Amino acid sequence: MGKGRLEAFSDGVFAIIITIMVLEMKVPHGETLDAVKPLLPVFLSYILSFVYVGIYWTNHHHMLHACTRVSGAVLWANLHLLFWLSLFPFVTGWMGENHFAPLPSAFYGLALLMAACAYWILQQVIIAVQGPQSILKAAVGADWKGKLSPVLYLVGIASTIFVPWIAQATYVAVALIWLIPDRRIERVLQQVQRE
Amino acid sequence: MGKGRLEAFSDGVFAIIITIMVLEMKVPHGETLDAVKPLLPVFLSYILSFVYVGIYWTNHHHMLHACTRVSGAVLWANLHLLFWLSLFPFVTGWMGENHFAPLPSAFYGLALLMAACAYWILQQVIIAVQGPQSILKAAVGADWKGKLSPVLYLVGIASTIFVPWIAQATYVAVALIWLIPDRRIERVLQQVQRE
Amino acid sequence: MGKGRLEAFSDGVFAIIITIMVLEMKVPHGETLDAVKPLLPVFLSYILSFVYVGIYWTNHHHMLHACTRVSGAVLWANLHLLFWLSLFPFVTGWMGENHFAPLPSAFYGLALLMAACAYWILQQVIIAVQGPQSILKAAVGADWKGKLSPVLYLVGIASTIFVPWIAQATYVAVALIWLIPDRRIERVLQQVQRE
Amino acid sequence: MGKGRLEAFSDGVFAIIITIMVLEMKVPHGETLDAVKPLLPVFLSYILSFVYVGIYWTNHHHMLHACTRVSGAVLWANLHLLFWLSLFPFVTGWMGENHFAPLPSAFYGLALLMAACAYWILQQVIIAVQGPQSILKAAVGADWKGKLSPVLYLVGIASTIFVPWIAQATYVAVALIWLIPDRRIERVLQQVQRE
Repeated sequence: MGKGRLEAFSDGVFAIIITIMVLEMKVPHGETLDAVKPLLPVFLSYILSFVYVGIYWTNHHHMLHACTRVSGAVLWANLHLLFWLSLFPFVTGWMGENHFAPLPSAFYGLALLMAACAYWILQQVIIAVQGPQSILKAAVGADWKGKLSPVLYLVGIASTIFVPWIAQATYVAVALIWLIPDRRIERVLQQVQRE
Repeated sequence: MGKGRLEAFSDGVFAIIITIMVLEMKVPHGETLDAVKPLLPVFLSYILSFVYVGIYWTNHHHMLHACTRVSGAVLWANLHLLFWLSLFPFVTGWMGENHFAPLPSAFYGLALLMAACAYWILQQVIIAVQGPQSILKAAVGADWKGKLSPVLYLVGIASTIFVPWIAQATYVAVALIWLIPDRRIERVLQQVQRE
Repeated sequence: MGKGRLEAFSDGVFAIIITIMVLEMKVPHGETLDAVKPLLPVFLSYILSFVYVGIYWTNHHHMLHACTRVSGAVLWANLHLLFWLSLFPFVTGWMGENHFAPLPSAFYGLALLMAACAYWILQQVIIAVQGPQSILKAAVGADWKGKLSPVLYLVGIASTIFVPWIAQATYVAVALIWLIPDRRIERVLQQVQRE
Repeated sequence: MGKGRLEAFSDGVFAIIITIMVLEMKVPHGETLDAVKPLLPVFLSYILSFVYVGIYWTNHHHMLHACTRVSGAVLWANLHLLFWLSLFPFVTGWMGENHFAPLPSAFYGLALLMAACAYWILQQVIIAVQGPQSILKAAVGADWKGKLSPVLYLVGIASTIFVPWIAQATYVAVALIWLIPDRRIERVLQQVQRE
C-alpha cells in the first residue's frame, strides 16, 4: 500500500491549515493606522503558528521519507496528528484577539502539547510497522528534542497562571529548537543508501 | 484513463472538508472559561465529523486502490459522494450550535445516510466497470458493515423524535464499527498479488 | 515542460471552489424547520453550481489528457479559466440568497458565459500548441456543445429582464447537455492508441 | 530528497490563496445594482492580486523545474515566500474595501515588496545549493526584472503619501512586466538538454 495518497492528503491539510489561519486576521473597516493596530497581536501569533505548522510539515516530510510501509494504524495516527493541528487556527485566533491573555495562552500551549504527543505516537507507530530494522528508529536516536518539547510546553502552560509572558517565551523557544529540520533522519538515510 | 487525478482531486476535497469544519468553531470574544464553554458541543460534533471524514478517506483510499479503470460514471459517482460529504461542515455546525437538538441531529443523520448511499453507489459502479472478475467485488464480500450502517442511521434519525440522545449514540456506534479500515480489500489485494 | 503541476494546481483550485461554495450556506441560529427554510434556494443554487464545477473538472480532466505540451500561454489560459470559476461561489451565494431575483440570476449567467469562453480559449491555445496534427482538435470535432452553450447562456441572461425562471431553466438545461463527459476525446484517444 | 512534496505543498498553498481571496468579496444583501456597486474596487484589487499570485505560481513552477536538489534551507526559503503570499488576501481586501486609500495601498505594496524579496532569497538559496554549475544561475542571468521590481514597489509605496493612484499604476505596471513567464529559464533548460 503506497504512501503517495497519505502524503498528498496530509500536504493538502497542512496547506489549508497554514492558509486559513490568516482568515482570523479580519480585514479592518477603517483605513487608518489605528484601525490595524489592534491586529498586531493577531499577526504575531499568526507568525508563531505559521512557523509551527512549517516545522511540523518539514519534519513530517522527513519522517514519511523514512517510512517504507503504510498500514491502517499509520493512517489513523496521521489523522490524529492532523486533528490537533487543525485546532491551531482556532487557538491562534483566540490567543491573538485576547492579547496573549492567560487562559487562551494556556489553550494554545495545550494544542501544541497534544500535537507533539500525536507526532510522537505517529513516529512510534511507523517504527513498530518497520520492525526491528527500522530506519526511522535509527534516525530518531535519543530524540532529545521530542522528549524536551512536551516538558517545555507544560512549563509554558503552568506559567500562564503566574507570569503570562513566560508562556509566549517558552513557545517561541521550542519553535527555535525545532527550526532546524531533522538532519538526523537525512544523515541516516544517506548512510543507508551508501551501504 | 488514469485514476491519478481522481485521487488528487478527491484528496483535495477531503482535506478541505475536514479542515473547514473547524471554521464553524468561531473564536469567542471573551478570554474566560465561560466564553469557550458554549463551544463544547460544537467541539464534540467536530470530533465526530472529523472521525467520519477520516473513515471515508481511508476507505476511499482502499477502494480506489482496488479500482483499475476510471470511466465517466466513476467520476460522477465520486462527485456525488463528495457532494454529500461537502454538507458535513454545515450539519456539524448546526447540530453543535443547537446542542444536539432533535431536528439538527436528524439532518446530521440524513447527511450520514446519503453519504453512505453515495459510497455504496460508487462501489457498485466500480464493480460494474471491472466486470465479472472484479477484485473489488471479491474484496467487499458480504459487506455487512455497508448494509448495517444505513439501517442504524435510519434508527438514529427516527429516534430524534422521541429520545434525541439515542441518535448521537447511534452515530458514534456506527463510527466505531467503521473505525477499523477495510482490511478485507487489503487481504484480497494481497492474495491477487501472490497468485 | 510537464503538465503534472498544472493538473495538481488546477485540481487544488477546483477542489477549493467546489468546497467553499458550501460556506455561503450559513449555519442558521434556530433549531426549527423555519430556521432552515430560507436556505432552500441557497441549497438549490449550490447543487447547480456543484454540478457545473463537476462538469468543468471532468472535461478539464479529459482535455488535459489530450494535451501533450504545456507552454506559458497554456498556463495563463488555464489561470484565466480558473479566475472565472473562482467567482462561482460569489454569484451562487448572491443568486441563492436573493431567491433567484433577476439581476443576481443575470450575473450568475454572466459568470457561466465567461467561464465557457475561457474554456474555449484554453482549448484553442492547446490546439495551437499541438500544431496541425492536434489530437485535441480531432477529438473536439464540430464542438456543437461548446458553440451552443454561450448562445443559451445569452438567452438565459436576456430572459432575466422578462421571465426570470426561464434563466434558471436554461442554466439547468445547459448543465444537462454537458453532464455526459466528453466521450469524443476518449474515443479519439483510443483510436490514436490503437494506430 | 525529492522535490515532489515541496511542489505539491506549494501548489496547495497557491491554490488556496488564489481562491480564498474571493471570500473577501462578501455576498451583498440586496439584489440591485446599487448593492454590488461598492464591491467594484474589491473586485478590481482581486483581479490584480489574482494576476500577481498567477505570476508567482508560473515563475515558481519554472524555478523549481530548474531546481535539482532540495535542502532544509530550500524548504524554509519556500515557506518564507508562502508566508508573505498568504498575506495577499488580507491586504487585497483592506485596499479594496477602502477604495484604494493611501495607507492600505502602501501596505499592499509592502506585501508585494516582501514577497519579491522572499522570491529572490529562494532563488539565491537554490543557486547556492546547486553550486558553481547552477542551471538556475545561468537561466536567471542579469535578472533585471527581479532587480527593477523592488525599486518600483518602493516608488509605489512612497507615492501613496502624495498621489495615491500612482501606487496602483506602479503595481499594475510591475504585473505587466512579469506577465510573460520566465522564458530565460525555459531557454537555458532546453540548451542543457540539447548538450
